[in-house]
Amino acid sequence: MTRTPQPDPAHALHTLREDGHAVIILDQTALPHRFVECRVETVEAAAHAIRSMQVRGAPLIGITAAYGLALALGRGADDAALEAAIALLGATRPTAVNLHWALERMRRHLAPLAPEVRRDAAWREARAILTEDAAANHALGSHGLALIQELAGRLERPVRVMTHCNAGWLATAAYGTALAPVYLAHAAGIAVEVLASETRPRNQGLLTAWELERARIAVTLVADNAAALLLQQGAADLVIVGADRIAANGDTANKIGTCLKALAAKDCGVPFYVAAPRSTIDWDCPDGAGIPIERRDAAELRRVTGLDAHDRLQTVDIAPESLRADNPAFDVTPARLITGILCECGIAAPGDLGALCGREAAR
Amino acid sequence: MTRTPQPDPAHALHTLREDGHAVIILDQTALPHRFVECRVETVEAAAHAIRSMQVRGAPLIGITAAYGLALALGRGADDAALEAAIALLGATRPTAVNLHWALERMRRHLAPLAPEVRRDAAWREARAILTEDAAANHALGSHGLALIQELAGRLERPVRVMTHCNAGWLATAAYGTALAPVYLAHAAGIAVEVLASETRPRNQGLLTAWELERARIAVTLVADNAAALLLQQGAADLVIVGADRIAANGDTANKIGTCLKALAAKDCGVPFYVAAPRSTIDWDCPDGAGIPIERRDAAELRRVTGLDAHDRLQTVDIAPESLRADNPAFDVTPARLITGILCECGIAAPGDLGALCGREAAR
Repeated sequence: MTRTPQPDPAHALHTLREDGHAVIILDQTALPHRFVECRVETVEAAAHAIRSMQVRGAPLIGITAAYGLALALGRGADDAALEAAIALLGATRPTAVNLHWALERMRRHLAPLAPEVRRDAAWREARAILTEDAAANHALGSHGLALIQELAGRLERPVRVMTHCNAGWLATAAYGTALAPVYLAHAAGIAVEVLASETRPRNQGLLTAWELERARIAVTLVADNAAALLLQQGAADLVIVGADRIAANGDTANKIGTCLKALAAKDCGVPFYVAAPRSTIDWDCPDGAGIPIERRDAAELRRVTGLDAHDRLQTVDIAPESLRADNPAFDVTPARLITGILCECGIAAPGDLGALCGREAAR
Repeated sequence: MTRTPQPDPAHALHTLREDGHAVIILDQTALPHRFVECRVETVEAAAHAIRSMQVRGAPLIGITAAYGLALALGRGADDAALEAAIALLGATRPTAVNLHWALERMRRHLAPLAPEVRRDAAWREARAILTEDAAANHALGSHGLALIQELAGRLERPVRVMTHCNAGWLATAAYGTALAPVYLAHAAGIAVEVLASETRPRNQGLLTAWELERARIAVTLVADNAAALLLQQGAADLVIVGADRIAANGDTANKIGTCLKALAAKDCGVPFYVAAPRSTIDWDCPDGAGIPIERRDAAELRRVTGLDAHDRLQTVDIAPESLRADNPAFDVTPARLITGILCECGIAAPGDLGALCGREAAR
């Protein structure tokens, strides 16, 4: 069985593993309350896993889509079958470009091949995407590690990182994006502490807290609302977030609430970094205005799931169903608020991203 | 029975009413799920009501403290009894200055009096504070109405107001502060729509939605995280929030998350107003650095209460108790981010607040 290249720091968990016939995913909708794995055997199940956020995080969405395509292709899959599966998977979520990047890469690889060899080629290419994501995690993490090392050298206390949503190993094949520098710093013996914002309405901050606690890295949960006060009070030395799509000019779509943190960081003079693999950069998108923003079901705002007094999972309605709600899932942080973007090529100011990566290399 | 001067727009509810022996409060911790009134007969119960947020909102906290003091004073209350009650009530919550303003006003009124007349004088003075707050609501609301009327004249669609937390009638004796202009506009036949942010961790945005829906004013619930995106997309024509303490220079402490909205509004060129009675202005506090910020129990972040599938109130844990959390309840918005402050004297830029009110008049 192929597993993600390196495990959960504490207990060898994997966001995704596979045996060439099926994909086993960690169902993130059950976390942090329950550890549940799901066996995904069809392209429809893969599409459902992405849509329902059983898997989430831009890199992991791309990887799951690639495997979903592999699941779609029987022996002798013709062009129509290939395109139908790409269309199904491509329609699951609009904002994270890694989904479309992975599907386009699969199409370019598979379309020229004879139908009878496409299935095996698809599994191999999906594995390559997974392996490369893990390598990208490590590479961009090492660039971020240098930032943390520099801060640790200056400060005589733990380095404090504020993040948003979850851009840890749960969102990727390996170390994560925003959290990769944190894991590498911890492994290098540098004391690091993380402020994890709740990230309403889906509460992915609890995933961040869960994975950091497992790795024995100090983490403090805070309300999304607390970012300005905490940055004013000097609670963080830098902010690092992930990304769902980075436009060519550096404007960055990420989980809703990211831009508020960027505004507060700018106002307080705290450096604000975006960490993502090159597959998150959309060179065809000149700026953030072209990034589609997903609006999800308003029920995400009305319903909350947790454990009751008897340790049973319970979903409760905190607002009546009649209440109108608007639930955009992402926002766009303008490049002018971003100190630097970390990818596997290094770190660059948003305006120097093309020079850092080479436009061609990123396509 | 003395009631708050004007009722809930739809069904004659009151945040607080009294009969000269006890105070009946609407228990806001049960809203929006249950309508529960509590009879408060002792100063300890009044202090508990403030501390536990059965009553909340800076003006209503001040009013409740004044009545709490009245409840403390038996016939023939000496100076020690008076001071002990003031100390008990004054220690309930640190940020909202209306609490201290109301207690100081009560002390100034009662201390010179003979002990045997203090009890009746205290009830009368508490009533005066309640009545004046209602009048202040109306006055500041009428100044805000002028802003909305001007916008309504220019725009050929409903005026869209973004707010934060709850600064409606639930937070005051009457129309509210931030929502007073909205209620007056609605009464004047001006179409107005409100964006109410959830306001984690205590979800007071659900109180705002509840009271606006009762008044048949269009309201949309949004995550706190959505403010930057929504303002970028032009979803609000202005932002109006309440306040817990306004420093002499206009720096404003209000519910955690307010400053993030102010930063986003400034970045998007959307006017940002603070609405509060003069009793919220702390002339002894030169700027926001002097405002104490309450940090509340981390359990507020971990536990959520709602209705289960059988319509029973259930509290669920969304995060494990072992998880460290930091829960500041307020932040300070710098005056430079505030377009104007509305109080019963009118509207002024933060720097002109002293001239608008007259420093002496506000003490």
